[in-house]
Amino acid sequence: MADFIEPKILKGFRDFLPPAEIARKNLVEKIERFFRSYGFVPIDTPALEYAEILLGKGGGETEKQIYRFRDNGDRDVALRFDLTVPFARFLAEHRADLCFPFKRYHIAKVWRGENSQRGRYREFTQCDMDIVGSDSAASDFEILHIMASTLPAIAGGDVIIRINHRGLFNRFLSRLGVLDSSVNILRSVDKLAKIGRDETLALLSEFAGENNAKEILDYIGISGDFNQTLVAMTAAAGPCAESERLGLIYEFMVDAGISSAVVLDPSITRGLDYYTGIVFESFLAEMPGIGSICSGGRYDNLLGLYSADKKNALTGVGTSIGIDRLIAGLEALGRLQTAPSYAQAAIACVAESSGGAYQALARKFRDQGIPCEVFLEEDKLSKQFQMAEKKGLRWFIIPDAANPLGGKLTLRDLSKRESREGLTLEEVSAVLK
Amino acid sequence: MADFIEPKILKGFRDFLPPAEIARKNLVEKIERFFRSYGFVPIDTPALEYAEILLGKGGGETEKQIYRFRDNGDRDVALRFDLTVPFARFLAEHRADLCFPFKRYHIAKVWRGENSQRGRYREFTQCDMDIVGSDSAASDFEILHIMASTLPAIAGGDVIIRINHRGLFNRFLSRLGVLDSSVNILRSVDKLAKIGRDETLALLSEFAGENNAKEILDYIGISGDFNQTLVAMTAAAGPCAESERLGLIYEFMVDAGISSAVVLDPSITRGLDYYTGIVFESFLAEMPGIGSICSGGRYDNLLGLYSADKKNALTGVGTSIGIDRLIAGLEALGRLQTAPSYAQAAIACVAESSGGAYQALARKFRDQGIPCEVFLEEDKLSKQFQMAEKKGLRWFIIPDAANPLGGKLTLRDLSKRESREGLTLEEVSAVLK
Repeated sequence: MADFIEPKILKGFRDFLPPAEIARKNLVEKIERFFRSYGFVPIDTPALEYAEILLGKGGGETEKQIYRFRDNGDRDVALRFDLTVPFARFLAEHRADLCFPFKRYHIAKVWRGENSQRGRYREFTQCDMDIVGSDSAASDFEILHIMASTLPAIAGGDVIIRINHRGLFNRFLSRLGVLDSSVNILRSVDKLAKIGRDETLALLSEFAGENNAKEILDYIGISGDFNQTLVAMTAAAGPCAESERLGLIYEFMVDAGISSAVVLDPSITRGLDYYTGIVFESFLAEMPGIGSICSGGRYDNLLGLYSADKKNALTGVGTSIGIDRLIAGLEALGRLQTAPSYAQAAIACVAESSGGAYQALARKFRDQGIPCEVFLEEDKLSKQFQMAEKKGLRWFIIPDAANPLGGKLTLRDLSKRESREGLTLEEVSAVLK
Repeated sequence: MADFIEPKILKGFRDFLPPAEIARKNLVEKIERFFRSYGFVPIDTPALEYAEILLGKGGGETEKQIYRFRDNGDRDVALRFDLTVPFARFLAEHRADLCFPFKRYHIAKVWRGENSQRGRYREFTQCDMDIVGSDSAASDFEILHIMASTLPAIAGGDVIIRINHRGLFNRFLSRLGVLDSSVNILRSVDKLAKIGRDETLALLSEFAGENNAKEILDYIGISGDFNQTLVAMTAAAGPCAESERLGLIYEFMVDAGISSAVVLDPSITRGLDYYTGIVFESFLAEMPGIGSICSGGRYDNLLGLYSADKKNALTGVGTSIGIDRLIAGLEALGRLQTAPSYAQAAIACVAESSGGAYQALARKFRDQGIPCEVFLEEDKLSKQFQMAEKKGLRWFIIPDAANPLGGKLTLRDLSKRESREGLTLEEVSAVLK
């Protein structure tokens, strides 16, 4: 036995069996159709990059999680842990060949050697879209518009998009005189849901003083309809361009008929992310507890790592759909669209010697857009029915033994366990279409 | 400057800009539609596996090329270098959950740290399909049938599929009494195209003696139509099951009307690959010189690494499309289907304040299946025309300034530089559909 290898997969990694992979492909293909319909274009970048490119000057948490090693040429390389950093490198390298504002999407695997105890995966799919090179409110709004049209269609139910503006929050902190502590304040605010109001207040008091801490909690607790909330936030932060921008984006949403999907929520901060303008998270209305299924925001100067020249800065706004979380949510809601196969029907193997005719017959169905499998091994029909059922097929076509290509066909409905004999190819097609 | 990182990509790796990525996606999506229409189902496996799983007992060439390292948990891991070895591990692990014969496809990236001097890539897409768990001639034939229907459709021209049978070649070597030297003989035969007849003869003579060497060269030089070739091969190797099987597969091809695409060619051996039954390579009729665009064959006992029990053996037959080579060929033939964008039209930004109405207007086109981009920044129309042309769009829609959503539209044909004014949404849609 020592000569044999145990067929095992790495912890935190997954195989996708056909029903899971078909579900994922269905979802991704639907998302891509939406992205494309807005004129977003796909790109791809390598899974491996120089570690220096991926880690930048930072490191920290990322450095601990990244798969980093020396390649056969002794280069210090790493697997990408997100699609944003490689995108920045891509923009810096290909800027002259691109049209700005550049609207791109990228759906690909990324790898993080996280502690996989909490059921987190070390390999997962990211699905990002960004508009780079426009600072317009129209581009912020376009990202929200895509989310408001795509997410309910793929979720099969309502989705709530919660938006905020990091710049407006900073104005508010500045007014309180605690902007210098914004990192610690953001970190504390981010914990609110986890540790509760009292502990958050205690934490905030440490960094901002007790009175300010209360004001911060009041600010992030502002609620009401969009306009009411915006008025209250503006009263707290003072009139400013950021508040005006939120107002303009809301007008766009009203004009486009998507305002009911969007909530202005000053508690959305996206933690320590690099966002500087609007930020957003979105939730399945029937299952908000699983967390945000699509988040993002506006950032400044994506190319800061590569150039000091502010004239070269590229600002952008983007969003990322959490494919794995969305799949988990749809599965729990019983709405995950999957199937054991793409085939609609299979053709029985009545005699192995007719293999050529069976493929010719199947091709007639395929040419009409009906995916059709051919069974390859002669066996009792009852066994073949069982196999077709196990494959999740509804229809089973039994060709004539003497004239498999030109003769009459029997069509079995495996769900009803009923057969109809003596049908022409056209009659069978009509049922299957 | 030392603070800034040079945005550079690893040697042997590539970025895909939108036109290249759209071309690749067009091709892969077309291939997938064919695979699915035959009832093949997709799977996915991790990019990273235990090195032991990927390298098996072998090593050799593979070991030198593989990206292998210790992960943060000190596990000996590696990036997959093909999709076959992970598929064997997948089958061994999930056998009980699958339906056999199992027809699967897998299109994914693989990595090989090859010497990239010869223009070879270190990251490339593999596109594999296999039928596992059937030893039938019908399954060999099904793979050839898929190739004969898919390859000309995606190549936009004739494709020649050259097939042979490794078992028949072995019968022939056995008859000559040189089966023990088959590895060296295969290696020598494989060099024929490169080193020419005389040097190959010298090499073969070393391993098989001069007379046998001549007979081997005569055998692999047999040509003619399928039946003539088969008769000559059978005369040389002796009547056997392998010859009968080739005859049966040919009958299937005649019955299914695909025989004209297939040539029986005893010089096709697939070198030292693990094939044991039929083997095949396929070539663009107009450009055979770029090499095989799709190759494969039948193999025994895919699970040999994981179990000694012959009762557990899984045989199969499969093929692999060389996406990169095919793209290079189609590009050279001027037949690569690509576009700078999926959008058919764009909507002008006449006034930034109408951003909401423009998205609402665009949605009306999108809902009719017309991909439609929205321009986000106000600018002279002449500038916006230029931008739309640069994006490769043909149609540009200019909304009414006073009534962007409900008013009449101007439609500009950018290819003819002509505008038509005063159109309704329906009239514009009719042109775009």
